[in-house]
Amino acid sequence: MKRIFAMLVAALVATSAMNLSAQTVTSPNGEIAVTFTLNEGTPTYSVDYKGAPVILPSRLGFDLNGAEDLLGGFVLGGTETATFDEVWEPVWGEELSIRNNYNELLVRLTQEATERDMNIRIRVFDDGYGLRYEFPRQRELTYFTVAEERTEFALTGDHKALWMPGDYDTQEYDYFDSRLSEMGEIAAAHVSTNSSTTRFSDWGVQTALTMKSDEGIYITLHEATLVDYSCMHLLYNPDTKTFSSWLTPDAIGNKAYLQTPCVTPWRTGVITDDARELLASRLTLNLNEPCAIEDTSWIKPVKYMGVWWELITGASNWSYAEEGNIKLADTDFATLKPHNNHGANNENVKRYIDFASKYGFDQLLVEGWNVGWEDWFGQHKDYVFDFVTPYPDFDLPALQQYAKEHGMRLMMHHETSASVRNYERHMERAYQFMVDNGYNSLKSGYVGNIFPRGEYHYGQLMNNHYLYAIQKAAEYKIMVNAHEAVRPTGLCRTWPNLIGNESARGTEYQSFGGTHPHHVTILPFTRLQGGPMDYTPGIFRMDLTNIPGNSSKVLSTLANQLALYVTLYSPLQMAADTPENYERYIDAFQFIVDVPVEWSESRYLLAEPGDYVVIARKDKNSENWFVGGVTDDNARQLAVAFDFLDEGKEYVAKVYADAKDADYATNPEAYVIYEGKVTSKSQTLISAARGGGFAISVREATPADKRVKKLKKVL
Amino acid sequence: MKRIFAMLVAALVATSAMNLSAQTVTSPNGEIAVTFTLNEGTPTYSVDYKGAPVILPSRLGFDLNGAEDLLGGFVLGGTETATFDEVWEPVWGEELSIRNNYNELLVRLTQEATERDMNIRIRVFDDGYGLRYEFPRQRELTYFTVAEERTEFALTGDHKALWMPGDYDTQEYDYFDSRLSEMGEIAAAHVSTNSSTTRFSDWGVQTALTMKSDEGIYITLHEATLVDYSCMHLLYNPDTKTFSSWLTPDAIGNKAYLQTPCVTPWRTGVITDDARELLASRLTLNLNEPCAIEDTSWIKPVKYMGVWWELITGASNWSYAEEGNIKLADTDFATLKPHNNHGANNENVKRYIDFASKYGFDQLLVEGWNVGWEDWFGQHKDYVFDFVTPYPDFDLPALQQYAKEHGMRLMMHHETSASVRNYERHMERAYQFMVDNGYNSLKSGYVGNIFPRGEYHYGQLMNNHYLYAIQKAAEYKIMVNAHEAVRPTGLCRTWPNLIGNESARGTEYQSFGGTHPHHVTILPFTRLQGGPMDYTPGIFRMDLTNIPGNSSKVLSTLANQLALYVTLYSPLQMAADTPENYERYIDAFQFIVDVPVEWSESRYLLAEPGDYVVIARKDKNSENWFVGGVTDDNARQLAVAFDFLDEGKEYVAKVYADAKDADYATNPEAYVIYEGKVTSKSQTLISAARGGGFAISVREATPADKRVKKLKKVL
Repeated sequence: MKRIFAMLVAALVATSAMNLSAQTVTSPNGEIAVTFTLNEGTPTYSVDYKGAPVILPSRLGFDLNGAEDLLGGFVLGGTETATFDEVWEPVWGEELSIRNNYNELLVRLTQEATERDMNIRIRVFDDGYGLRYEFPRQRELTYFTVAEERTEFALTGDHKALWMPGDYDTQEYDYFDSRLSEMGEIAAAHVSTNSSTTRFSDWGVQTALTMKSDEGIYITLHEATLVDYSCMHLLYNPDTKTFSSWLTPDAIGNKAYLQTPCVTPWRTGVITDDARELLASRLTLNLNEPCAIEDTSWIKPVKYMGVWWELITGASNWSYAEEGNIKLADTDFATLKPHNNHGANNENVKRYIDFASKYGFDQLLVEGWNVGWEDWFGQHKDYVFDFVTPYPDFDLPALQQYAKEHGMRLMMHHETSASVRNYERHMERAYQFMVDNGYNSLKSGYVGNIFPRGEYHYGQLMNNHYLYAIQKAAEYKIMVNAHEAVRPTGLCRTWPNLIGNESARGTEYQSFGGTHPHHVTILPFTRLQGGPMDYTPGIFRMDLTNIPGNSSKVLSTLANQLALYVTLYSPLQMAADTPENYERYIDAFQFIVDVPVEWSESRYLLAEPGDYVVIARKDKNSENWFVGGVTDDNARQLAVAFDFLDEGKEYVAKVYADAKDADYATNPEAYVIYEGKVTSKSQTLISAARGGGFAISVREATPADKRVKKLKKVL
Repeated sequence: MKRIFAMLVAALVATSAMNLSAQTVTSPNGEIAVTFTLNEGTPTYSVDYKGAPVILPSRLGFDLNGAEDLLGGFVLGGTETATFDEVWEPVWGEELSIRNNYNELLVRLTQEATERDMNIRIRVFDDGYGLRYEFPRQRELTYFTVAEERTEFALTGDHKALWMPGDYDTQEYDYFDSRLSEMGEIAAAHVSTNSSTTRFSDWGVQTALTMKSDEGIYITLHEATLVDYSCMHLLYNPDTKTFSSWLTPDAIGNKAYLQTPCVTPWRTGVITDDARELLASRLTLNLNEPCAIEDTSWIKPVKYMGVWWELITGASNWSYAEEGNIKLADTDFATLKPHNNHGANNENVKRYIDFASKYGFDQLLVEGWNVGWEDWFGQHKDYVFDFVTPYPDFDLPALQQYAKEHGMRLMMHHETSASVRNYERHMERAYQFMVDNGYNSLKSGYVGNIFPRGEYHYGQLMNNHYLYAIQKAAEYKIMVNAHEAVRPTGLCRTWPNLIGNESARGTEYQSFGGTHPHHVTILPFTRLQGGPMDYTPGIFRMDLTNIPGNSSKVLSTLANQLALYVTLYSPLQMAADTPENYERYIDAFQFIVDVPVEWSESRYLLAEPGDYVVIARKDKNSENWFVGGVTDDNARQLAVAFDFLDEGKEYVAKVYADAKDADYATNPEAYVIYEGKVTSKSQTLISAARGGGFAISVREATPADKRVKKLKKVL
């Protein structure tokens, strides 16, 4: 990332306003106003949007363990205001440059009785605000232990919300769509577990949390820059209509350990009356630090296939031999009797490389390549994998060479089984092994309960681990896509080798019983606010019941799957299905072949959280545009205006849409493909089936297209 | 270690004795008998010595977490007996070869209702027994979690015991000398804390625990081969006169995690009616596995001095600048203002090298050489040290070169501050740094509460860490002396690069208020049963009150300090005091110069736990003998018979004894040195002051000694 334009107008006016009761900082456009008030010694804030309250006066502060709380008794030591305006270039992203423009208020507070300083920094952007606690170096506060952060978010009504249960270990839930007041009852009735599940209250929810008021105001609460702190959940009090921060504890129940000088993550709110602005918001990235990697030339978006869906669906196995009681240190896998259904075998991997290279993919993920999968899960054990030893039927150097000859690379896979001590013990050796063997990207996984025992996936200790893994990977020029890690908070700005995360319910759940069709209409407003998701779209065969042991159906149409390459932004995009399934619909597969993973521009055409999303993006390396649209479990007609195209030019649009009789439940693979000419003045109406959607590729017309007619259904 | 003689007479007779109620295995000499009895399905054992009971019938088994217990309902599946006799050569030790001779009984048990197998293996030696649980590979038991091990030790009377409070984090206690029945009251009244203290019951004690019955039988309970398990304490029930095993929990309260096939550590008892046999026992070593290191040529005993006592006493500091709030990652130590009392500065280190090299020392330990000591302790923090960055005033390569030119090496110091995740993250880089800079030995430390938080120093996770650190060190040919680690259980047989441990109250406490004079008369019977201790003897200036901030006096005479080089066996021996203090009594220092750290033979001349110890050892590389004797807080006359000397030869003995008016409390530095001729027929009586002792060096007489008279006070 290079700053191409920076303007800092710092109005560093220290006010000695001991008697100041309230101070307001507004967004550059004046629409959002955050007011800090010291209310009889208690720090509070409130947020208005276009003159009406969005967050009512809400308390700020902390309960500490072993020390007096930081909730009240404060006096104002002064305030500072500043204005910042900058345009920066991300290494990868939804556009070539991002404007970071905010007004800032720093409030200096001192707790009079204890002489402890706690400052509040507030930044207000046109699309929302961030606030954080800052603890300067000081005499009376050095080390302290947070029993709970007491940041409140007092809401103005019983909003509709897109939420999932709060959990210390997983975000792989389906979203619920309800009034805030209904959450408790729904959560109590909802039983969902996976490899590691730790809920803390029926009124607990995760961030990013997107709400809509009856007045049509959208509010997304999340956090930015989660560094050396535990992940924040929110606990709702239906009586006061107030959320309170609820941090993830450690093994002994503490929430965070801080040493001054330090800052907390930003507590953010994106606020708008146009849902498309939620998608366009770069507030989370803007609140993160600039890129910390000097040379980023090795960081490249990746389009990949994988020996993966056949494992997920149960068609083949990660393991090489029969599953059972294995100790890695004592086992010679070459002597084990293979069960002959090991997915990551030489022949199968070559088959994928043959197919993927034919269609221009960059990399092939191979899971189950390394020894240990015979007994890897559910035992909370220490030494599960060594990350460097392939199975006997996986000739790693030969396969990497084969990939290279085909213009590809293999992608590494490190499943840690959540045994983090073991992973850290092997990490640098495993990274060096990657470098030595031509790998430059890594999918890591943290399935199961954390070892060291008692820790949670989203606690401070683990958050430090995830960042450590990314930072160490950067030393080895390795790109990381961490699954089951904490949900992102924009750290990819600082560490752009973090090219992906899971941290939500991904496509795999379509093989584990299915995912609600509205899921992909929610993710862009919630999970994706923090950073890209390795959602692994592109499933073409929806009925999995032909696979022994699998009773699942993918709750999506094929056209919906294509749309996701545009609607779910990621610099890392997978074509998740198998070569044989793509061969069945090779004309539809062409969209996946054509769609890029690098963009110069993005336009958010239609958006309603939980209902529909239509996005258009321009290829970074051509004049082509790609449009994706998805709907929830309601069929609907989606209008696409092509006004993002250059005026006066003629383009050819190729539409991949649901067939008339398509339906995620009854006829998910029915699609139509049609082509037609469009200009910047064109509009078209596309019918999306239940759980459906569409994808469009748009290229400039050439003389060879003279017989192509105008796109049908153009309004 | 090389086996020089091995004889295995395996009488592997599988008995299908389902109806067998009891089976006894006796020691080779017939004096110790261990009887296993399946008492209505409950496994029990008992121990007799010379026909009288020592351990009454005691239960065996486990409470499990999440599964039915393994305490009763067992049926006998068969038994096997075997006899083993071998002589093996340790890499270092108290003698050149060790005999390992036992009779063995393996009892195969199956819990009928659950079809789970649990075997008991019992080995009986002439000096005691070991028993352990073995879980073979089986269908119905793979992973299991120990809620508590229920091994009992039912005693025959209210023995006298030398004990210290049970604690999950420290063994740095003074010992108590009381009846078993008195322990609870004493422990309740005893308040002692240090950097990390976690007691669990006033009736809990640590092993090795040495008791003496009213019939004069000595019993030492301990464990051997503590691998992948948590450390065992003992909980006493005064009503039943029974100890029960009490394991160290992990962060979530579990005691151990096992995966079949597996074995527990050995639960050992050394039993004798001659206390000298306790000292001569090699039972703990014999129950450990043979050496796992192929090439041991790089493992060498080390005699060293250190920039250490001046730090411990407060005369200088580990830190370079003023102590305070420091974050390692953010601190440039070169810019800090030095307080100018940093011990590990170039000039001071050279001064030590000059002195130590003049007197033939191998190495110089330097603590406080690396950045971070300004804020290293008590905050339970993660990133405390990086183990590779010297302070600005410590020119590491130049000092190592200076040492080399003087025939020495520097000894590395890694204080981890018990931040174990951080240490493991840096470990291999730190070891490589050692190799690159000419270090081959390491003192490591684990001061403070364990990070990851909630774990204890003696839990399974930490025990795995200590062994991991030793095994990794072996890869780099590094010898390790781990302080604050779990007390040893003979693992130095398998990993002889573990050349030392602290794991008890060392000399440092003489600077922290003092240690009871009987301490050194107890350690050889307790702590040293598991492996050598880096006790760091050799203090010559007992009054520390001249040092600002220090109000301590060393509760030992100078002659007692000299004796420790013989009475406390270690392949790693320090001359702990400073050059200037040795210069004051350079004639007494000559004993430390002369005493070797490698022995060919050891004789235990006089022994009464808690009262006195007199040991003679023969230098491995000459015909010289060295004798050491210590008493407790009672003055006493100790008789030394020189019958260990070769018959018919004449020797010159040089005695370093307490002066007539010496006394640990009032006149600790008063000593006398006298010389005289002795033969194998000589005996001498030496007066040891309160807290005193003596040391003798014995060399063959030469013609130059013709004027030397017979040793005075020869009986």
